[in-house]
Amino acid sequence: MRLLLATRNAKKLVELRRILAAEGIVGIEVVGLADVPEYPEAPETGATFEENALAKARDAVAATGLPAIADDSGLEVDALNGMPGVLSARWAGGHGDDAANLELVLSQLGDVPDERRGGAFVSAVALVVPGHDDVVVRGFWPGRIVRKVKGTNGFGYDPIFVPDGDARTSAELGSAEKDAISHRGRALSLILPHLRALV
Amino acid sequence: MRLLLATRNAKKLVELRRILAAEGIVGIEVVGLADVPEYPEAPETGATFEENALAKARDAVAATGLPAIADDSGLEVDALNGMPGVLSARWAGGHGDDAANLELVLSQLGDVPDERRGGAFVSAVALVVPGHDDVVVRGFWPGRIVRKVKGTNGFGYDPIFVPDGDARTSAELGSAEKDAISHRGRALSLILPHLRALV
Repeated sequence: MRLLLATRNAKKLVELRRILAAEGIVGIEVVGLADVPEYPEAPETGATFEENALAKARDAVAATGLPAIADDSGLEVDALNGMPGVLSARWAGGHGDDAANLELVLSQLGDVPDERRGGAFVSAVALVVPGHDDVVVRGFWPGRIVRKVKGTNGFGYDPIFVPDGDARTSAELGSAEKDAISHRGRALSLILPHLRALV
Repeated sequence: MRLLLATRNAKKLVELRRILAAEGIVGIEVVGLADVPEYPEAPETGATFEENALAKARDAVAATGLPAIADDSGLEVDALNGMPGVLSARWAGGHGDDAANLELVLSQLGDVPDERRGGAFVSAVALVVPGHDDVVVRGFWPGRIVRKVKGTNGFGYDPIFVPDGDARTSAELGSAEKDAISHRGRALSLILPHLRALV
């Protein structure tokens, strides 16, 4: 079965394929937006991660007829009242400029003392399959925002996020290690039973 | 009586003098930080406007012995979960770059639809007088965030904020008109009885 992961982010494709392989789920070929004919994508203007993930997955199914998964993920910073949140990818204005986004968060938190630097990565993952009920789940990964970029793995805000119980940023974790505990790993693990039921 | 308004913002000095004059309060000479010997100012790291306003006023009294007023004000944007909030002056990273701050809010709200563009200006004003109890009050000015800069009066986020019941931005209001309804005007009016009692 082909499953469309509605993203242009090659790292997310690799991540989902890795998780399916690790779980022994065979018979699902994960493709990305680059592998299907182009279709107009609605802007992500929802107020919640769930709303955006569902809209992306529904758009993908409507355009391609393939079962589709989409995620909307971001960083919730306590001292920013939970923002950047759904605006994580465009926090500094442009879309997807990781370096600008995390530099902005660091400078916004410049005067924020250590005891108020908590935060969490959050991921909503939606699975939309023609003829089935929609599924949307949320994964949560609590931690804190450090003062300096550290690590080169991952993407987005990984280099400034230290998960609870660790001293390393999530950009210093190995891929498998991160999948097992991360927000998106947790959300995808909640989706796995629904994927298993399809093959 | 000399009263120290703990600010280097000349527009805030003019505003307070104008309000005192309009209220017929005489016998209070408002001076600013530029008019007193320099003292170390603690960074504004409080989690609330009230905390910052009180800390600034207390520092001013401790350093100068003068009765002091301080404010901490900012813009709370619903779609940003109430941010920039206490980080309003340094939202884009640097401190006090009005143009960069409001451009950043505009671009962060670029995809946010009209019905979710609500917000409010908020101002906490603290009055600290040796031998008297501290007073801290909050003024609130609800409205919405527009999509383009408009108007040249005021400062900060005035050019992108349209108060409820008006079609103009607060940067298009006249000074007296703004004082009568603005967040800081409201907060200062709550402080006036306490000032009257001093002279």
